[in-house]
Amino acid sequence: MSERIRVGLVGTGRIGQIHARTLTQMVDSVELAVLTDVNQESARACAAACGVPKVVGDYRALLDDSTLQAVVICSSTDTHAPFIVQAAQAGKHIFCEKPIAADLDKIDAALDAVERAGVRLMVAFNRRFDANHQRIKKAIDSGEIGTPHRLHVVSRDPSPPPIDYIRVSGGLFFDMTIHDFDMARFLLGDVDEVYAAGGVLVDPRIGEAGDIDTAVVTLKFKNGALGTIENSRQAVYGYDQRVEVFGSKGAARSDNLYPNAVTISTGQSVARDLPLNFFLERYLDSYRTEMEAFIRSLADGAPMPVTGFDGRAPVVIAMAALTSCRENRPVKIAEIG
Amino acid sequence: MSERIRVGLVGTGRIGQIHARTLTQMVDSVELAVLTDVNQESARACAAACGVPKVVGDYRALLDDSTLQAVVICSSTDTHAPFIVQAAQAGKHIFCEKPIAADLDKIDAALDAVERAGVRLMVAFNRRFDANHQRIKKAIDSGEIGTPHRLHVVSRDPSPPPIDYIRVSGGLFFDMTIHDFDMARFLLGDVDEVYAAGGVLVDPRIGEAGDIDTAVVTLKFKNGALGTIENSRQAVYGYDQRVEVFGSKGAARSDNLYPNAVTISTGQSVARDLPLNFFLERYLDSYRTEMEAFIRSLADGAPMPVTGFDGRAPVVIAMAALTSCRENRPVKIAEIG
Amino acid sequence: MSERIRVGLVGTGRIGQIHARTLTQMVDSVELAVLTDVNQESARACAAACGVPKVVGDYRALLDDSTLQAVVICSSTDTHAPFIVQAAQAGKHIFCEKPIAADLDKIDAALDAVERAGVRLMVAFNRRFDANHQRIKKAIDSGEIGTPHRLHVVSRDPSPPPIDYIRVSGGLFFDMTIHDFDMARFLLGDVDEVYAAGGVLVDPRIGEAGDIDTAVVTLKFKNGALGTIENSRQAVYGYDQRVEVFGSKGAARSDNLYPNAVTISTGQSVARDLPLNFFLERYLDSYRTEMEAFIRSLADGAPMPVTGFDGRAPVVIAMAALTSCRENRPVKIAEIG
Amino acid sequence: MSERIRVGLVGTGRIGQIHARTLTQMVDSVELAVLTDVNQESARACAAACGVPKVVGDYRALLDDSTLQAVVICSSTDTHAPFIVQAAQAGKHIFCEKPIAADLDKIDAALDAVERAGVRLMVAFNRRFDANHQRIKKAIDSGEIGTPHRLHVVSRDPSPPPIDYIRVSGGLFFDMTIHDFDMARFLLGDVDEVYAAGGVLVDPRIGEAGDIDTAVVTLKFKNGALGTIENSRQAVYGYDQRVEVFGSKGAARSDNLYPNAVTISTGQSVARDLPLNFFLERYLDSYRTEMEAFIRSLADGAPMPVTGFDGRAPVVIAMAALTSCRENRPVKIAEIG
Repeated sequence: MSERIRVGLVGTGRIGQIHARTLTQMVDSVELAVLTDVNQESARACAAACGVPKVVGDYRALLDDSTLQAVVICSSTDTHAPFIVQAAQAGKHIFCEKPIAADLDKIDAALDAVERAGVRLMVAFNRRFDANHQRIKKAIDSGEIGTPHRLHVVSRDPSPPPIDYIRVSGGLFFDMTIHDFDMARFLLGDVDEVYAAGGVLVDPRIGEAGDIDTAVVTLKFKNGALGTIENSRQAVYGYDQRVEVFGSKGAARSDNLYPNAVTISTGQSVARDLPLNFFLERYLDSYRTEMEAFIRSLADGAPMPVTGFDGRAPVVIAMAALTSCRENRPVKIAEIG
Repeated sequence: MSERIRVGLVGTGRIGQIHARTLTQMVDSVELAVLTDVNQESARACAAACGVPKVVGDYRALLDDSTLQAVVICSSTDTHAPFIVQAAQAGKHIFCEKPIAADLDKIDAALDAVERAGVRLMVAFNRRFDANHQRIKKAIDSGEIGTPHRLHVVSRDPSPPPIDYIRVSGGLFFDMTIHDFDMARFLLGDVDEVYAAGGVLVDPRIGEAGDIDTAVVTLKFKNGALGTIENSRQAVYGYDQRVEVFGSKGAARSDNLYPNAVTISTGQSVARDLPLNFFLERYLDSYRTEMEAFIRSLADGAPMPVTGFDGRAPVVIAMAALTSCRENRPVKIAEIG
Repeated sequence: MSERIRVGLVGTGRIGQIHARTLTQMVDSVELAVLTDVNQESARACAAACGVPKVVGDYRALLDDSTLQAVVICSSTDTHAPFIVQAAQAGKHIFCEKPIAADLDKIDAALDAVERAGVRLMVAFNRRFDANHQRIKKAIDSGEIGTPHRLHVVSRDPSPPPIDYIRVSGGLFFDMTIHDFDMARFLLGDVDEVYAAGGVLVDPRIGEAGDIDTAVVTLKFKNGALGTIENSRQAVYGYDQRVEVFGSKGAARSDNLYPNAVTISTGQSVARDLPLNFFLERYLDSYRTEMEAFIRSLADGAPMPVTGFDGRAPVVIAMAALTSCRENRPVKIAEIG
Repeated sequence: MSERIRVGLVGTGRIGQIHARTLTQMVDSVELAVLTDVNQESARACAAACGVPKVVGDYRALLDDSTLQAVVICSSTDTHAPFIVQAAQAGKHIFCEKPIAADLDKIDAALDAVERAGVRLMVAFNRRFDANHQRIKKAIDSGEIGTPHRLHVVSRDPSPPPIDYIRVSGGLFFDMTIHDFDMARFLLGDVDEVYAAGGVLVDPRIGEAGDIDTAVVTLKFKNGALGTIENSRQAVYGYDQRVEVFGSKGAARSDNLYPNAVTISTGQSVARDLPLNFFLERYLDSYRTEMEAFIRSLADGAPMPVTGFDGRAPVVIAMAALTSCRENRPVKIAEIG
């Protein structure tokens, strides 16, 4: 067996803890050697819980560790772009949580640094690694359903985040639909034009905060296919994550995932329990699979399964969607950049 | 029991035969007394097959029969509006196949004649009477799923009609989406604005004939809800007819109907037979139920479940959709009429 | 087209009305010319509702009508055997509701009369004509699931019949399981041995009436396959009718039928409406299909799809089951007769 | 937080590796300190893969480690009973793979040693911890489906083990049905009588080896409910693990688990991928959950969720089933012991 890849991780919040646990369980191929977080208490707790041997005081100290080949960036969104730049300059390969930034200039600066340093970057669009989405991708790639004509993505959260979060979230298209834009590209390729309709139907305070809580987006793909994405901030029955691709030879359609496969028949109904409630449960396996893919690409020298360009493209689509929604007109991707 | 209502029927094509059979089986409440068709052979065959006692030579002769209280109009689309006018003038109640016409002036003339004559008119949007759609309607009306935020209608035919038919069909929005526009109004009420994207993805000859074969329509309802309709002229697995309404307290979603509920597990897959192939099978029960509703409304004096205005409104939406698709912009319903 | 077959029907109770309606709707191939019932009022009402031209005073008068080629026997069970004998002697072909009798001597006398008269007899095990059961049969016959190893039949009624009915019903095995014994033979062929376990779990009054309300029957088929049948007099969620056949190359499994295909997701559950409540709804189509099969066999001279022997065999299995349950031991079919 | 429990594990075969990995991932509560296996190579490989610090030469050396509070026994079945006795005498708590033994004397000696030593024993019937089975148990315990009347367990392996394994397996009832007997007790309680029918339908070589490959078992529970279990050594579509409990107020029914929730509709069928192929995939989560339950019971002093008696009882039922199948008669549990 080849030597284990040594990795450092920055940001031990919710998603950082998941990655830390995954990395410490990949005993054969990787060693999570160092953690850091602006909250040192959080970093130490995560190290103890996952069995990580070392905590350092800041990201700079982590980058200075010459034994590390790669960094995993799970810190707050505003740090992603500068941290990518610094990691690249330090010669580290990079796994970075999405989004790189909400600003194309910052994204381009980060991607540029990566390219100049010759390091490798994977942007963590974890949903691509979900078993349902992988199966649909396979149905397309294998020709099982022919040429795709239509994509429909249903993506609804179980309940809205706090209004304070809404205010700084960048808005629905950047905070929520961004995943679905990536899914659209993953499954059907590049987008040519966007038309977005939005509404405030869940909670008027979301509207007062300057955002929408419900959206329907029409996508015209470069290959001629038509896509629709629908979002809601609140599905009372839980996280609703379904995709349908319809093509010339058939259709592939995913259902939600459930905590069990038991049906209860009573005098009232034939019912099952609610779907898995939110992303940490629904997409749990995908976090592991994406990290394994990152490590495998590093080990094999294979192309990263989600590139820096893949991190940039959905941000552009989100910008087009926001413009479309505000001006109530279809917007070409080329109009944005 | 009250006396049976005496009815005459014009047009013994495919749909006329269905109505004729239904009417002759409603032994308790109705008597289908007379048939006519421009093809007398067809009318006689239908009379023999269904046990209808009399065939007359033309529609005029049918209207002259003073013992008839109502007429069922199943003749070709271009005759609907003039036949409504004549029936109204003859004092007959009217059950008319959709659409009334593709032209608002003709529709308005027909509705005007009906109103002036004081007769009653039902336009045959049979899908409203389908058990799935009825159940979704009930989920909305009962408050079971709260305030509707979203409607999604999937409506795909198993295979395109002949190109010659495409040429005279009025186009996808008038020939196919018209049903879905009606379904949208049935479930969520009146529409304020339409954005339609179309493509020729199934068969280039459809494009050469001036039509599209694939469409995605976004609807903004007057109540603020957002709708999407998707159409394809060709779903290789059969007729795909599904509706989802998502609201503040839940969602109601219909699946397709199947010829049986048997699952076959083999070494290859866990599979079931294809859905019911097309509308005559899929919506068979709805033809009976709509006719029963018409007869019951006549007998009880209750309001018609689908009015003349319900026949007009989806034509206006179709016009807006066509304009939107051609000009690639959202179009207000008020812009049309 | 060939001439229509003229039929008379005796017994205008619930099932007789269904057959009468079916026959009057088979306009092309059959003419239901005469009805009779010990309750003349019932016979006249049925004639009016279905449009049957003639009612006669008794079965004898019906048999005396030399224009009738066939009779449909829907009268009470105790009359089946003697009515078959008389009809055979009158030279009429016979469609007879199940069971022929609960007594092998009477059954054998009836079958003997049929054979001597050279008329044709179909026993009305309607479930064989159900689309689910037909699909499972096809999966077996086509080799799709290989050699059958196992049959499991779930057959539960929504609620028990009145205790007075229980007392005269002949007991669960003769009244309810009889259908499942026929289904077992239809799908997997003849039975060699039976072991039956029963209990009174639904209602102690059923036990006081000398019957059981819950049963599990193990069948050893002559071909080596193993079968199980389970019955309950009360499934609070409605009629539960499912069959599974498992074989060397796969399995075929049926689900219940539902009034619609709509799923309702709320904060409590993901639910659908209850299955069709009882046999008149669940098996409605099968009554039509079996009658069509009878008429077609008469017209074509093809073998009857359910023969007199098929009517006798499940009675023998029921006898074996009753002996097994009482004596708590496996019982060979050959032990009964 | 309390101190971590120190554990040693014996037997690093397939199931031992699963438990070793689980234990090393339960960083907070447990420390897997020592491994041993008769195959030292296997033990060392497992230690390396899972990060276990120490490997010892034999089980005796493991028991001599006074820092260990508990042992996990995953060695071959014939060692279970003596290893339990030795561990008990060494004062260790015990997690033991099923079955304890196929011989009641050995089981009783082991349980006796446990009781005298005052240590705690959990027998690893992992299926009890599966999310489906837990949900069905909850449906019973909560009263959701009323008083249980019926249990039906479908348990089919994807393919038979090698004939050499069949010869030493103890036979289908001890090797395969044993899990289902435990499931029956878990869900509906103690059994009073068994009737078992078996056959050689999958592979004649299994018969030549003195075993059966297909079985149907009827259980009469002490509470009056009726159970059926069906087994096959070969379901070509994969591992088939379904349970249905039917009661006075409803039914709970589980379906198989699948690698994804995607449906593929083509011109041939509406299909999904095959179920999870075998127990390591299907019951993977249950292995973790059962180990967590063991550790939690140790930490909390709560009763073990699966006791030594629970390990004994299904062996008795298997003996009764074997006698029943050989002698073709119902056998009382009390007749066995």
